[in-house]
Amino acid sequence: MKLIHDPIHGHIELDDFVVGLVDTPEFQRLRRITQLGLAFLAYPSARHTRFEHSLGTFYLAKRIVEHNPEIGEGAVYAALLHDLGHYPFSHTLEALYPRHEENTKWFIRHGEIGDVIRERYSVGEFLKLLKHPLVSGDIDADRMDYLVRDAYYTGAAYGLVDLDRLVRNLLWRDGMLIVGEKGVIAAQNLLLARSMMYPTVYQHHVSKIASAMLVTAVELEGIPSEEIRTMDEVDLIARLRASERAEVRELVRAIDDRRLYKRVLYSASDPGGDAVAELWGELEAEFGHLAIVDYPPKPKFEEKNAFVETERGLKRLSEVSPLVRSLVELKDTHWRWGVYARADVRERVERFLGAFFD
Amino acid sequence: MKLIHDPIHGHIELDDFVVGLVDTPEFQRLRRITQLGLAFLAYPSARHTRFEHSLGTFYLAKRIVEHNPEIGEGAVYAALLHDLGHYPFSHTLEALYPRHEENTKWFIRHGEIGDVIRERYSVGEFLKLLKHPLVSGDIDADRMDYLVRDAYYTGAAYGLVDLDRLVRNLLWRDGMLIVGEKGVIAAQNLLLARSMMYPTVYQHHVSKIASAMLVTAVELEGIPSEEIRTMDEVDLIARLRASERAEVRELVRAIDDRRLYKRVLYSASDPGGDAVAELWGELEAEFGHLAIVDYPPKPKFEEKNAFVETERGLKRLSEVSPLVRSLVELKDTHWRWGVYARADVRERVERFLGAFFD
Amino acid sequence: MKLIHDPIHGHIELDDFVVGLVDTPEFQRLRRITQLGLAFLAYPSARHTRFEHSLGTFYLAKRIVEHNPEIGEGAVYAALLHDLGHYPFSHTLEALYPRHEENTKWFIRHGEIGDVIRERYSVGEFLKLLKHPLVSGDIDADRMDYLVRDAYYTGAAYGLVDLDRLVRNLLWRDGMLIVGEKGVIAAQNLLLARSMMYPTVYQHHVSKIASAMLVTAVELEGIPSEEIRTMDEVDLIARLRASERAEVRELVRAIDDRRLYKRVLYSASDPGGDAVAELWGELEAEFGHLAIVDYPPKPKFEEKNAFVETERGLKRLSEVSPLVRSLVELKDTHWRWGVYARADVRERVERFLGAFFD
Amino acid sequence: MKLIHDPIHGHIELDDFVVGLVDTPEFQRLRRITQLGLAFLAYPSARHTRFEHSLGTFYLAKRIVEHNPEIGEGAVYAALLHDLGHYPFSHTLEALYPRHEENTKWFIRHGEIGDVIRERYSVGEFLKLLKHPLVSGDIDADRMDYLVRDAYYTGAAYGLVDLDRLVRNLLWRDGMLIVGEKGVIAAQNLLLARSMMYPTVYQHHVSKIASAMLVTAVELEGIPSEEIRTMDEVDLIARLRASERAEVRELVRAIDDRRLYKRVLYSASDPGGDAVAELWGELEAEFGHLAIVDYPPKPKFEEKNAFVETERGLKRLSEVSPLVRSLVELKDTHWRWGVYARADVRERVERFLGAFFD
Repeated sequence: MKLIHDPIHGHIELDDFVVGLVDTPEFQRLRRITQLGLAFLAYPSARHTRFEHSLGTFYLAKRIVEHNPEIGEGAVYAALLHDLGHYPFSHTLEALYPRHEENTKWFIRHGEIGDVIRERYSVGEFLKLLKHPLVSGDIDADRMDYLVRDAYYTGAAYGLVDLDRLVRNLLWRDGMLIVGEKGVIAAQNLLLARSMMYPTVYQHHVSKIASAMLVTAVELEGIPSEEIRTMDEVDLIARLRASERAEVRELVRAIDDRRLYKRVLYSASDPGGDAVAELWGELEAEFGHLAIVDYPPKPKFEEKNAFVETERGLKRLSEVSPLVRSLVELKDTHWRWGVYARADVRERVERFLGAFFD
Repeated sequence: MKLIHDPIHGHIELDDFVVGLVDTPEFQRLRRITQLGLAFLAYPSARHTRFEHSLGTFYLAKRIVEHNPEIGEGAVYAALLHDLGHYPFSHTLEALYPRHEENTKWFIRHGEIGDVIRERYSVGEFLKLLKHPLVSGDIDADRMDYLVRDAYYTGAAYGLVDLDRLVRNLLWRDGMLIVGEKGVIAAQNLLLARSMMYPTVYQHHVSKIASAMLVTAVELEGIPSEEIRTMDEVDLIARLRASERAEVRELVRAIDDRRLYKRVLYSASDPGGDAVAELWGELEAEFGHLAIVDYPPKPKFEEKNAFVETERGLKRLSEVSPLVRSLVELKDTHWRWGVYARADVRERVERFLGAFFD
Repeated sequence: MKLIHDPIHGHIELDDFVVGLVDTPEFQRLRRITQLGLAFLAYPSARHTRFEHSLGTFYLAKRIVEHNPEIGEGAVYAALLHDLGHYPFSHTLEALYPRHEENTKWFIRHGEIGDVIRERYSVGEFLKLLKHPLVSGDIDADRMDYLVRDAYYTGAAYGLVDLDRLVRNLLWRDGMLIVGEKGVIAAQNLLLARSMMYPTVYQHHVSKIASAMLVTAVELEGIPSEEIRTMDEVDLIARLRASERAEVRELVRAIDDRRLYKRVLYSASDPGGDAVAELWGELEAEFGHLAIVDYPPKPKFEEKNAFVETERGLKRLSEVSPLVRSLVELKDTHWRWGVYARADVRERVERFLGAFFD
Repeated sequence: MKLIHDPIHGHIELDDFVVGLVDTPEFQRLRRITQLGLAFLAYPSARHTRFEHSLGTFYLAKRIVEHNPEIGEGAVYAALLHDLGHYPFSHTLEALYPRHEENTKWFIRHGEIGDVIRERYSVGEFLKLLKHPLVSGDIDADRMDYLVRDAYYTGAAYGLVDLDRLVRNLLWRDGMLIVGEKGVIAAQNLLLARSMMYPTVYQHHVSKIASAMLVTAVELEGIPSEEIRTMDEVDLIARLRASERAEVRELVRAIDDRRLYKRVLYSASDPGGDAVAELWGELEAEFGHLAIVDYPPKPKFEEKNAFVETERGLKRLSEVSPLVRSLVELKDTHWRWGVYARADVRERVERFLGAFFD
């Protein structure tokens, strides 16, 4: 047994099988994938990686399974590996490439880590566990770890969650992870914490602008998905710095130096996908990479899938908690789309937008 | 005025001049220099960078100067920049290259940051401030920040220091930063914390082995100091991964995958520099890069330079505190030299050492 | 200047005038008034007192006034004294006696502390400051301190509030303390924290039962309000232990030994004050002090009085934040009334209630 | 199973037997015995009690026994009860009465708690467990809990200890609790933390003066030990407030109002017991209760009894750690004796002392 020290959970115990999984190039690569992508440009201390988060998720999953042994330990190992396939800078590049879950499967099928898994599981069987409620629900080990961890590393005051109470009050019922009645306030608090981390950290405009710049650079560079999926952040940044295209080099240089594009437009009112597409085309024709449109999908607050065991049977958490209900209503509140431009063309882009929307 | 959120100090206020300094490529580069080098291979969460540490040092320096305005604000800006010249992975490569202080001067003389400084100071005048007691004493803003920060990021239980009490009890006397009588226990605690972080974190054997591997790779690659001094960690790792020399590629790959060399010898008894040099030569002839000798300089505990203002005049902290006195005596206790080898040649190297020392 | 060490705010600085206020018997008495009354029977560590809370409120008020000097320092001293008049066990006995604010005025008019105040203020002028928005709003120094402090002492995970951000974003406008736009999420978080502390800590049923028992004992003992207002917790408990009435001695003994009455009824549905009064009368006739009715007033969530400064003028926080809006809707959710009985008559009381409501 | 929430250890689980022990008047009385006596006059937030500390000691003892099941669970229950016999204000009154361990035995022999114990143990057998190394060593569950807890409640920065690492590295060997090699630094840190809490908190002069005043009041009141051993702090303070002797009432009033005696003499040089006794007699004759001599026994640092399991057999911790060695040397450093006097006679006492020592 091996111990890893973690500021969130204290000592995390790893048994031999877990050590085998962790000691593979695929898992070690997660040390070079930052958890919050470019958020460190807004919160300098947010330098934690998918590696620590994966260990933390494993730790919580294991504790939940200790309280609910019928879940089986396979799901615990799947929890460890649930983020294996993340691209450099985590979710940032999912705007251009398949979701990271696809890469996770690919690594397990083709990497050394697959050999370790095969000691105990068939790959097919294991892949199914990656969608286990332990890591894919509204109240799950993944979310429990990342909220507390992201708060710790950013210093944000919104991620305090009573993990111990939650762990003790998550119940396995008919293939679902349910909140016991004594865990309701802790679960509600988890969802509230998330809703406050969302605008404050996860959707901070500095992070969004830098991300849009990185996406633009990667798109211009034209890296195929078979290539990017095994890259780490060193590979990607080095590749962009050495690009043959001046625009790419300029963009990555600007991110490095934190000389970010400015917001010309930043709005909660959605003109619709068609109008945005048209605008984007025209902006590109006029300004090339100097103006970027950032039109993200609307956030999904799936809080409606958290269930509570009450005296009167299963209830949605949103039925039991008016606060959670208002979270569901509130889900689009923080959505923004934007147009960002390099400082020197900002005014020209502003006039262009004025004309376009006129 | 700009606010930066920091988990250690809360909100750090930056005035326009500081924003100007921070917004230069030279200062932003510190975001890509990890504070503890390769220590994250032992403490996965230790991913903080010289950037946050520099801001934290600035913050503490500023508070100390608020209590001692006669120090003048120049020293506060120097505190911000005191680590500007660090190489990739911080102190690791100082085994091969000039100390980072030299690079700091070079950046200030030749970088954009020099232009910002010249708005208020002559460069010559400013360079002198880099050795100011605020950042180069035994009890200084630098050390106060890094101990608490390193403890926070590693989760180590040894770095708690009463920063507020220290800040309120540091006194400027005749060009020295002196501890006031009410700050003695806090100062003693700072030095004790450091002495415990030393073996636990700073000299963790995993970090030492990985560092020795990196030093070997960089030496084999033969990067001139004029080149490495402007590199960040992306540049360096990318360069090593793309090396023409297979040994270099293999070494960096092993660090990436955390397939570290094993300790064949790890000893507190010093055979003397000559014997080590001879051993090293022979090992190299026999094993090339597969065996590495790690013979670090003895640590300097300069605790003898911390002074306290007592009723009976200035005293050394070590006179006032028997614990600090024993720290001075203890300074070599944790020193180790080692021979590390790739797992597959470990036994051969062991036999070789046996023969050598026989 | 004097420094007091506080685990929440670090060092709190007291100037000579404040030291004068603190060093009076009236203020020192607060050391013997627990902040959360009998909540320590549910959360053993909740032993903090109105003394620390008063100092913490003073500290925050002072910081807010540093950012808004036009408020004037009188309000800061009033913040220090806002809880001076609390009865033993804080709010518990307000069911029987005038609100503690009345006692505060009485102490200032008749106590030594009034002499200290008169050095700088007229008493009439000062009494008005006790209702200052700094300590009587929805987002104020009082609430900011107690939420964080109560969470620290209970270990509850719901009281984390970004005090520094709030302090920096409270603005004084036309006699109101307004939240600046950058403080909205922190303010919202404060109100959410409160709403979660409410059912978890402040209205914990153990605390409610013990409080109802204490109220009953004090009522039976018949202590006049002129007498109780100067008592501390030692006085009160000693008086009850030495009572001539066996019921009183029995009740205080049961609280001491934590042999609490049991819940026979605990309900969110309100039968109306008349029905409850009738029930109470009948229960008393039948069971004396062995059955207690606990029919608290509905909680007031005054969150509708928190205002935000937005680009489009002043708005209620509940307009800007759907979560705060749902707090207002939710205000009665946690209200309960109850009937508690000594363990040995529990069943008889249960049957009695069955008959009554039949 | 019952859960108690604790800010230090999170949720503490109590099984039925423990609930039985806790739910006795003798154990509940500990809620009214403050852990640090009158230290709250220096650190207002230090209001925690022997109740929480006892639960925390139980929690740590249980974890240590989980790692060393051969210890047996009896010692864990003894850990819970090890402080049962404390007098009001903890150690303060041990200057006048038998040590609290005697009262613990008395409560177990004669209290309701004895009946609970007898369900599983003979009283004779159980009493022996009260001296178990789990709670009476240099590195034990008692000390581990109180250092961290006292630091948390005072806000002192000196009590951080890596409890988890210690718990995992305490080994049961031949009836001794030994530190494993990986626990040495954590154990050393525990002893260092204690040595810093000693002058900062435990021997704070404010606490010492108030304690001397309380001791004087109790002595004047002449309470027999059979009476005081069952008192709690309410009983004692109420008794002193209602004393027939004006001096007693005056002393307790002064403590309540924090109008403490002043230091006329406070010295590290020991004139010897005989000289002190003579001085005391003369002072008493001249000043009665207005001048108090405080001549405490020298502290025992028993650090020499902590053992470490090394490759070369058992070693004293002080052999392995030079820092611990210097703690032993340093043991008398913070010892002081003092003469305190009421403010209005201070100068007269000063002159008297001058004449006495002339």
